[in-house]
Amino acid sequence: MSTPPSERARVKRYNHIADYDPATIHAILDAMPLCHVGYVFNGSPFVTPTLQWRDGDCIFWHGSAASRMLESAECQDVCVTVSIYDGLVMARSAYNYNINHRSVMIFGKPEKLSDEEKAVQLRNMVNKTIPGQWERLRPVKPQELKATTVLSMKITEASAKLRSGQPDDDEDADFPVWTGVIPVRHEIGAPIPNPKNVPGVEFPEDGHKFKIG
Amino acid sequence: MSTPPSERARVKRYNHIADYDPATIHAILDAMPLCHVGYVFNGSPFVTPTLQWRDGDCIFWHGSAASRMLESAECQDVCVTVSIYDGLVMARSAYNYNINHRSVMIFGKPEKLSDEEKAVQLRNMVNKTIPGQWERLRPVKPQELKATTVLSMKITEASAKLRSGQPDDDEDADFPVWTGVIPVRHEIGAPIPNPKNVPGVEFPEDGHKFKIG
Ligand SMILES: Cc1cc2nc3c(=O)[nH]c(=O)nc-3n(C[C@H](O)[C@H](O)[C@H](O)COP(=O)(O)OP(=O)(O)OC[C@H]3O[C@@H](n4cnc5c(N)ncnc54)[C@H](O)[C@@H]3O)c2cc1C
Ligand SMILES: Cc1cc2nc3c(=O)[nH]c(=O)nc-3n(C[C@H](O)[C@H](O)[C@H](O)COP(=O)(O)OP(=O)(O)OC[C@H]3O[C@@H](n4cnc5c(N)ncnc54)[C@H](O)[C@@H]3O)c2cc1C
Ligand code: HEM
Ligand code: HEM
Repeated sequence: MSTPPSERARVKRYNHIADYDPATIHAILDAMPLCHVGYVFNGSPFVTPTLQWRDGDCIFWHGSAASRMLESAECQDVCVTVSIYDGLVMARSAYNYNINHRSVMIFGKPEKLSDEEKAVQLRNMVNKTIPGQWERLRPVKPQELKATTVLSMKITEASAKLRSGQPDDDEDADFPVWTGVIPVRHEIGAPIPNPKNVPGVEFPEDGHKFKIG
Repeated sequence: MSTPPSERARVKRYNHIADYDPATIHAILDAMPLCHVGYVFNGSPFVTPTLQWRDGDCIFWHGSAASRMLESAECQDVCVTVSIYDGLVMARSAYNYNINHRSVMIFGKPEKLSDEEKAVQLRNMVNKTIPGQWERLRPVKPQELKATTVLSMKITEASAKLRSGQPDDDEDADFPVWTGVIPVRHEIGAPIPNPKNVPGVEFPEDGHKFKIG
């Protein structure tokens, strides 16, 4: 276990499975675009599901220039959490049931990107989902960029927790009930073409690289 | 679309895909145990991944009696969000890319369960994961119940958003690029037995009912 970057990001519960290594944190962020952004508005917390992507030591997310989530988050304290459910850990006792998982919590104050950076990062968003897809699409229009806000946040204050493997309940080793793990993973299905597609267009080879989890 | 239960839970962006019907909200909660609890501590928002389960018109979540998340959430404003990524919607333009999804946001002030209710709901947690499993396990001990806190929250102030199907971009219908949906679902893998299992124990028939998403 490396050192926590701040008191706020120091894991206390189950801290034997904590990790603060940027490489570990980056790998979890890259595996799962779905994140949950927590912000405070009128004194109440809100948790909004959104897509994040990473470039270097920053994460980004996007939405409408009129979005309350983006307006309330800009330059304010937020917490962005990414979590992956990898499996159900079945122990001998209910108390020792657990979940195999990978998760990251990032704290910071996001900033709004300039128009120039925005175009770069929206292209990144698309091409990190499907390589080269931005170049195959109908080109983006100036008014579309204008309608869009992208926030960025440095990944400096962050923590990860990771669990894998079998239950930890040797104290009950003799109890005669099946124990083990039921793995869970994200399955990518066969692409469903739009019936309105222009005849002859083909699913891009790179589309098979789309992956989650 | 039914009527929002409060101003805080009224969907503004993409409100054509909003739904406030309890049956819709319950179905999403029942499909996905992983939730993200947002709470405010020392003025900052925190988003903690946790497992929720539902009984009637309440949701529940559990953890250590010493957990900061549970302590900070009790009787304070929280937002609990459940979201499911059902597919990548590939449009003709990057601007019209979207995600097929089901999500719920619930607002309220959670309450701590009494010892009696706690035992009932922890049994529910286990048996909603795998029917009848609580009865097969090493019985719970009084000190285990004591170490555990369960919070409950009424599902009165809540909203859902749901999207399914093909892209909405008829304005670009002639642009010759493949469009459609790449479906994503949670796959349950084959159970991995613990090498330390008591010889002869068998995976419970009901274990095959475990499902996510
Ligand atoms: C899929 C999944 C399911 C889970 N289910 C449950 C459950 O049902 N009950 C339960 O008690 N816990 C569950 N957890 C763990 C939960 O996320 C918290 O770690 C735990 O509840 C302790 O919370 P706390 O606020 O007391 O932690 P503390 O250790 O006091 O939190 C201090 C700091 O540690 C870091 N931290 C805490 N949790 C995480 C995390 N998950 N990932 C990255 N950094 C973290 C943050 O920086 C946080 O500010 C689950 C986690 C995952 C990923
Ligand atoms: C898997 C997934 C990925 C998403 N990716 C993105 C993305 O990349 N960019 C983006 O802009 N949006 C994304 N969304 C939608 C996002 O969750 C918000 O709905 C949207 O950003 C508008 O936020 P807002 O605060 O401006 O909404 P507002 O409409 O102003 O929010 C007002 C109220 O509407 C309700 N509400 C808002 N969003 C949701 C929701 N998702 N589920 C249930 N109730 C809700 C809440 O009660 C909220 O208080 C995604 C949603 C899901 C489930
Ligand atoms: C991989 C590519 C992309 C995906 C998967 C994606 C996905 C999404 C999702 C899920 C939403 C939320 C819709 C809702 O509220 O239910 C959204 C909103 C939005 N996206 Fe994207 N997006 C992508 C790229 C882009 C790009 C490149 C732009 C701009 C050029 C853009 C502009 C917007 C805008 C403006 C909104 C807000 C819509 C509104 O609230 O009215 N998106 N996007
Ligand atoms: C389906 C059944 C259950 C599952 C999947 C489950 C899962 C979990 C998970 C994922 C955690 C978080 C561990 C971490 O911080 O990384 C946790 C914590 C905890 N669970 Fe459960 N649990 C289950 C049932 C129970 C029951 C029945 C009890 C009590 C009898 C219990 C008591 C606790 C306690 C006390 C903690 C806090 C541990 C700590 O922070 O020290 N759990 N559980």
